[in-house]
Amino acid sequence: MAVNVVESKEWYLAGYAAEGVPTTDHLTLRSVPLSLSLDSIPDAHVAVQLLFISVDPYLRTRMSGQEDGLYFPQFSLNQVITAFGVGRVMRSKDEKYSEGDIVLNAFFPVAEYCVVPSSVLIRKIDPEAGIPLPEYLSCLGVPGFAAWVGIEVLGEAKPGSNAFISAAAGGVGMVAGQLAKLKGCRVIGSTGSDAKVRLIKEEFGYDDAFNYNKEVDFDATLSKYFPNGIDIYLENVGSKMLEAVLNHVNPHARIPVCGMISQYNQIWTEREGVRNLLNIVGKEVRMEGFLVGSYLDRFADFTVEMEGYLKQGKISSKIKIYEGIQSFAESLGSLFSSSNFGKVVIEVNKPR
Amino acid sequence: MAVNVVESKEWYLAGYAAEGVPTTDHLTLRSVPLSLSLDSIPDAHVAVQLLFISVDPYLRTRMSGQEDGLYFPQFSLNQVITAFGVGRVMRSKDEKYSEGDIVLNAFFPVAEYCVVPSSVLIRKIDPEAGIPLPEYLSCLGVPGFAAWVGIEVLGEAKPGSNAFISAAAGGVGMVAGQLAKLKGCRVIGSTGSDAKVRLIKEEFGYDDAFNYNKEVDFDATLSKYFPNGIDIYLENVGSKMLEAVLNHVNPHARIPVCGMISQYNQIWTEREGVRNLLNIVGKEVRMEGFLVGSYLDRFADFTVEMEGYLKQGKISSKIKIYEGIQSFAESLGSLFSSSNFGKVVIEVNKPR
Ligand SMILES: NC(=O)c1ccc[n+]([C@@H]2O[C@H](COP(=O)([O-])OP(=O)(O)OC[C@H]3O[C@@H](n4cnc5c(N)ncnc54)[C@H](OP(=O)(O)O)[C@@H]3O)[C@@H](O)[C@H]2O)c1
Ligand SMILES: NC(=O)c1ccc[n+]([C@@H]2O[C@H](COP(=O)([O-])OP(=O)(O)OC[C@H]3O[C@@H](n4cnc5c(N)ncnc54)[C@H](OP(=O)(O)O)[C@@H]3O)[C@@H](O)[C@H]2O)c1
Repeated sequence: MAVNVVESKEWYLAGYAAEGVPTTDHLTLRSVPLSLSLDSIPDAHVAVQLLFISVDPYLRTRMSGQEDGLYFPQFSLNQVITAFGVGRVMRSKDEKYSEGDIVLNAFFPVAEYCVVPSSVLIRKIDPEAGIPLPEYLSCLGVPGFAAWVGIEVLGEAKPGSNAFISAAAGGVGMVAGQLAKLKGCRVIGSTGSDAKVRLIKEEFGYDDAFNYNKEVDFDATLSKYFPNGIDIYLENVGSKMLEAVLNHVNPHARIPVCGMISQYNQIWTEREGVRNLLNIVGKEVRMEGFLVGSYLDRFADFTVEMEGYLKQGKISSKIKIYEGIQSFAESLGSLFSSSNFGKVVIEVNKPR
Repeated sequence: MAVNVVESKEWYLAGYAAEGVPTTDHLTLRSVPLSLSLDSIPDAHVAVQLLFISVDPYLRTRMSGQEDGLYFPQFSLNQVITAFGVGRVMRSKDEKYSEGDIVLNAFFPVAEYCVVPSSVLIRKIDPEAGIPLPEYLSCLGVPGFAAWVGIEVLGEAKPGSNAFISAAAGGVGMVAGQLAKLKGCRVIGSTGSDAKVRLIKEEFGYDDAFNYNKEVDFDATLSKYFPNGIDIYLENVGSKMLEAVLNHVNPHARIPVCGMISQYNQIWTEREGVRNLLNIVGKEVRMEGFLVGSYLDRFADFTVEMEGYLKQGKISSKIKIYEGIQSFAESLGSLFSSSNFGKVVIEVNKPR
């Protein structure tokens, strides 16, 4: 007979971290009993076993306790953290969903099990489609879509454009570099370790790459890698790298601003400012921030294109999988070091 | 009989000013004899008596001796300064121009008289059109066109938009505020004196305005003037004002970057940086630099619209006229204080 009550481990916010990387002082794991019996599940709700949870930089900005540059609402104290995830329906009180369905949700609790309104589910995933489930959180998910919006929509990548990608070996960066190559750009990446430099050149097809932790003068570095200037900079990190880029932009360069991870652990008044924004005038640069949520009308186009690339082997993907829900705090912290390759995901329960 | 040799006073660059406002240490007036006899004028050239010279902030950035954020070429040492101007043809070796024609040129020497290739002349002006000649350097010239590109093209001004204009009482600012009002925006300006605050409210129709020299906390100031946030910021000044604006932008705000005059007297590494660019992501801001020269395909549209406004009295204009070529250094310096209203122009010779 099916289990009717589970102990579900979940992460909740014990305290805000105004600065620095959140630790287990701020994020705490607790175990809560959850009834899965059909009559305890409200109408139009489903009980879900979490399979994969996406670990993303923006989550950190929801734990600072202050209005922040990304403006996502702060998590409430003592409430469970939510994240993008893939889960399996265990019980359903909605005729559109059946036991065994694999579903995607942008706001799953970071937990082993949950009961959620079926209206929050984004869609069902066909597990027989030949695409590994975590890929729906990576190349086919938010980071892949962010890369696509950045490179193809706002970056207007064209053959011969000189493209620069920061955080080039991460979830967004690995896809962005490959998309820019597919569009015919010359692509250079920056990342935080020599191993990642090798990876993006060998596996993701970057024309060249450098380890920013080893460069003392970004300005000189960019002179070396961009003798003909920068046409597209996909901004993922902010601060000193952006400043260096602004000294090397070509006329009419595009800077899609996807994120600025170097700023997420700092209060804004403590951040290092960018001093050479005047170059935006002289070089007529378009710098444009974006959130993928505003481009959902293009998500179907993106999906068709990206599934095609994945099936044809034109885009390769790397996913760093952390095992078990208990790894959440560690995996989140890892985003602020250079310890991982590719997209960071937690495998909460093994898919059957 | 017509004069065949004139003594022409002209300004040349005696030394670069890396920092600070250029003075007569850097800019020097000299008198040179100029032959106006027809046989001394090369074919396809005209001799011109300068009438009005436009005094613009970008000129200062051509006197720093270093590659700069506006990227206009540096003036050469000992060479005459050039500027936008209106002149009268005195002798012509081009059948398209006759004595007495009033002509416009973006690169007239800052001098009393000159001989220039007729190919550099932008166009003839009809002095009977009922528009005062200096207006071709103001509302109908570069500042007016910059305001139009900023507000109508890049700013996408719409009824109800909350628009903020810095350097609001200057050549660009006075036009920008009025254009934004004509588009139905709520318009607030910042400027450097109480008299200018009064002027832009009373004469240019700004809904409200403040004297930034009296405000200690721009963030609080903008909270007061923009309870509903900022949709359009026409950036003319940079630095602390931009930083404050970025804390008040609405989602999808536009920041056309016309200039950053607070930065023109500083080496870039000495400038105060902007620390909260991360807001560009969360608010999906589009910040776009522009130079009017890249929008010349729209100049005819602009001219029709602006001439209409001027004739219908829908746009009013203020021009600060300095008398005589000897006032160039002083008038240029005045751009970096709050001493003038409206567009700064030198009357070199009285139009007949
Ligand atoms: N706009 C959107 O809708 C959207 C959507 C998804 C992601 N994003 C943004 O895109 C960026 C990348 O996200 P992702 O999910 O792909 O994460 P990720 O790149 O997989 O992980 C973050 C990486 O950032 C780098 N990093 C961390 N701290 C840094 C610092 N101080 N300076 C420079 N690099 C640092 C690290 O790689 P290195 O070894 O290279 O240092 C780290 O692996 C983030 O800014 C994120 O907020 C935006
Ligand atoms: N992109 C283009 O194609 C284009 C074309 C024309 C002009 N522009 C730019 O547009 C801006 C305005 O030019 P304009 O010709 O109209 O000049 P303007 O506004 O007539 O004169 C400059 C004004 O700037 C203000 N100012 C000076 N130093 C300042 C500082 N440190 N902080 C704040 N404000 C300061 C002063 O007015 P206050 O009393 O208000 O301080 C001064 O009167 C400049 O940045 C210029 O470079 C760009």
